[in-house]
Amino acid sequence: MDALFNPRSIAVIGASKTPGKIGHAILTNIVKYGFRGRVYPVNPKYDEIEDLKCYPTVLDIPDEIDLAIIVIPAEQVPKAVGEAGAKGAKVAVVISSGFKEAGRADLEESLLEYARKYNIRILGPNIFGLCYTPKRLNATFGPQDVIPGSIALVSQSGALGIALMGWTIVEKVGLSALISLGNKADIDDADLLEWLRDDPNTSVILIYLEGVKDGRRFMEEARKTSVKKPVIVIKAGKTRRGMQAVASHTGSLAGMDSVYNAAFEQSGVLRAGSLEEAFDWARLFSTKKVSKGENTIIITNGGGVGVLATDACEELGVKLLDPTEDLKREFMAYMPPFGSPRNPVDITGQATHVEFEGAIDVAIRKDIINNIIVLYCQTAVADPIKLAEVLIKANKSTDKPIVAAMIGGEKVSEAMDMLKREGFPVYPTPERAVSSMAAMIKWSMKRRVL
Amino acid sequence: MDALFNPRSIAVIGASKTPGKIGHAILTNIVKYGFRGRVYPVNPKYDEIEDLKCYPTVLDIPDEIDLAIIVIPAEQVPKAVGEAGAKGAKVAVVISSGFKEAGRADLEESLLEYARKYNIRILGPNIFGLCYTPKRLNATFGPQDVIPGSIALVSQSGALGIALMGWTIVEKVGLSALISLGNKADIDDADLLEWLRDDPNTSVILIYLEGVKDGRRFMEEARKTSVKKPVIVIKAGKTRRGMQAVASHTGSLAGMDSVYNAAFEQSGVLRAGSLEEAFDWARLFSTKKVSKGENTIIITNGGGVGVLATDACEELGVKLLDPTEDLKREFMAYMPPFGSPRNPVDITGQATHVEFEGAIDVAIRKDIINNIIVLYCQTAVADPIKLAEVLIKANKSTDKPIVAAMIGGEKVSEAMDMLKREGFPVYPTPERAVSSMAAMIKWSMKRRVL
Repeated sequence: MDALFNPRSIAVIGASKTPGKIGHAILTNIVKYGFRGRVYPVNPKYDEIEDLKCYPTVLDIPDEIDLAIIVIPAEQVPKAVGEAGAKGAKVAVVISSGFKEAGRADLEESLLEYARKYNIRILGPNIFGLCYTPKRLNATFGPQDVIPGSIALVSQSGALGIALMGWTIVEKVGLSALISLGNKADIDDADLLEWLRDDPNTSVILIYLEGVKDGRRFMEEARKTSVKKPVIVIKAGKTRRGMQAVASHTGSLAGMDSVYNAAFEQSGVLRAGSLEEAFDWARLFSTKKVSKGENTIIITNGGGVGVLATDACEELGVKLLDPTEDLKREFMAYMPPFGSPRNPVDITGQATHVEFEGAIDVAIRKDIINNIIVLYCQTAVADPIKLAEVLIKANKSTDKPIVAAMIGGEKVSEAMDMLKREGFPVYPTPERAVSSMAAMIKWSMKRRVL
Repeated sequence: MDALFNPRSIAVIGASKTPGKIGHAILTNIVKYGFRGRVYPVNPKYDEIEDLKCYPTVLDIPDEIDLAIIVIPAEQVPKAVGEAGAKGAKVAVVISSGFKEAGRADLEESLLEYARKYNIRILGPNIFGLCYTPKRLNATFGPQDVIPGSIALVSQSGALGIALMGWTIVEKVGLSALISLGNKADIDDADLLEWLRDDPNTSVILIYLEGVKDGRRFMEEARKTSVKKPVIVIKAGKTRRGMQAVASHTGSLAGMDSVYNAAFEQSGVLRAGSLEEAFDWARLFSTKKVSKGENTIIITNGGGVGVLATDACEELGVKLLDPTEDLKREFMAYMPPFGSPRNPVDITGQATHVEFEGAIDVAIRKDIINNIIVLYCQTAVADPIKLAEVLIKANKSTDKPIVAAMIGGEKVSEAMDMLKREGFPVYPTPERAVSSMAAMIKWSMKRRVL
């Protein structure tokens, strides 16, 4: 499996000179994203592509090959996999489609026979590739400029995965890895969990799942992984009709949703209710923080958002600390007389970034407080950019999880972009900030008993 | 009440020349946003402000006054309200704070005595003002460039309301009105509902609510309004702790949440679970469309998002139509052989905007289909900008509600901005598109039996 993420050399079987072709997109992505190993295009039609010498077959390459990326018509794939295996490649990434998903289960079986015979593992077929940013490996036909980070994204759906790849760039979400699983002929979620849980570059694993092959093994790997880092799953096919849609999409058996829920609960997997929620949670987890306890404090300059966050906390089981009189006095230093030192700590619309900084500092210093939620409504007195600087500094100075929600206009939008670039978990509504903190606390408490 | 939204003349009592002061911000906003009536600054310190002649008191203005905006210290407000009333103003917008919310219930009572005596209605006190875009009236100290549209936003929270005002600009959400309610000494949600339901410029009313004064009247006005146009409420203080937070914020009695739920249900009010959801719904309602029935169809180029949307439909009670063989044949004209003409209609990743257009056209033409959900995952073959053009055209050609979700990179983000500017309801995830459609169908069916 290590050859999938850390290959020293790659053969791109079916590399092409023609822009628009997948075999061209993958090769250029590998080259332009700055892969640090050696790359060999394979195609009998060319002598060179992108200034790289091109070989008629993988067997002709005068070097060892760790990883083979295969982008040729389905019929020819099994043999190519055999050749790559014979050449010593440990994993083949089969981009090509036209297998089980197109009614050709026979071709997929033949592919697996070659793989077994030549002792090579298969990712795919019917996928858009994989990306591993620590090694500058972008072997996908998606966008080139994936932002490095610590979220590993695993998708059973190709179209969704590749679209999300673009979305992460716009949203400034940093990825460690992006893996398309497709038909899961061989490598599946469980294999990836096994590898990713020990990957120091990955702090959270987000999986779009339609169905698993081996439930027991998935659970076991998920449990072992959840002890170390959070596993977030978007499980599609929750409902009767959703299951039918899954069957006609990837042919997976979605299975009883209640069974999945029980399995996730037992193995510590966090099940997100939507795509948005999954990425919201992953943003906080990518800070690599862990809650030391359940006591949470809300610091706000707006009463209304404070109430909305309070409601969300109660609904999601986030425990709001009742400040002692001593603690109240400390918070009161950062608010006008009509502010409220209770929780939510309302430093009022008169607060500048200085009062925010002071109140956040109190929350960081007090051992009784484990988690901090900061809410900001744009005002003329509190500059959102300066608040962003305060948040970034605060986040670096403590191992307590901190999240923020910011509401306002253009300048708030700039401040949020700045925070996102720095990996600070910021959200556009109080409810989304609270939901992320709830997931953090749930995982932090659960991992102790797994 | 008409004087609040359609005043022919406004006096700004406490207008100021000093940038940074609220009395300056409000006057300049009124002038610069292009108010179409007459404006009179009132302040004994100045002869003119912003090239407008300034008067020592409202009584000195040589013109009739419909609306008075009051921005002076709380202690002086009751008398000023009396003067404005004596001058014939029908409504006073009291921006000033320092009343009940600051422990000065006596001052608020005095304000009301003057109001009753001089027959003038009060909006506020303790608010950021009001904005009514059809008359280019921006009497707030918030951002200047509010985007005209058909959503009326009513907020009991000042900080939240003003922050959302900026947010609507960034998010290209068009507003008809924005009203800050603050302490609700006189004018409350029910009064606004009564006026807004007959306002041809408003197609949906969105209320941030902490508590109501007169539950029976609110329900009655909400029911009468819901027959004509949707009323969306974000009710804060749902939970025990949230109610406490409300009490310390605006002093409202949040009341039993179950009672509110029953009242909302009975009066046709749509209760949103979060800020985001409320605006998502409002975006669709601002198209002024009504569902003629419950039959919904999903058209997608990505199997995975189709499944996620299907799950969301089932969970939210959105009825997915089972296409007849005839209908399937029609859809099949716009997909490759491995596409699926069932619902979700999967035109596959090979679809261009032409196939989208064809499939959407089928859905528009067939009377059996009432509601259309379009899902797009970015691909190299389907240009998101061209798809946006298709969607805008389709939306104009039918009275059926259409929503879309688009996932992808920079170009998708551009296409979504384009759609938002055109008032097309587009969302970043399938779940949010479905939630909005569910609210549309719920309201459309409910209004018939109110």
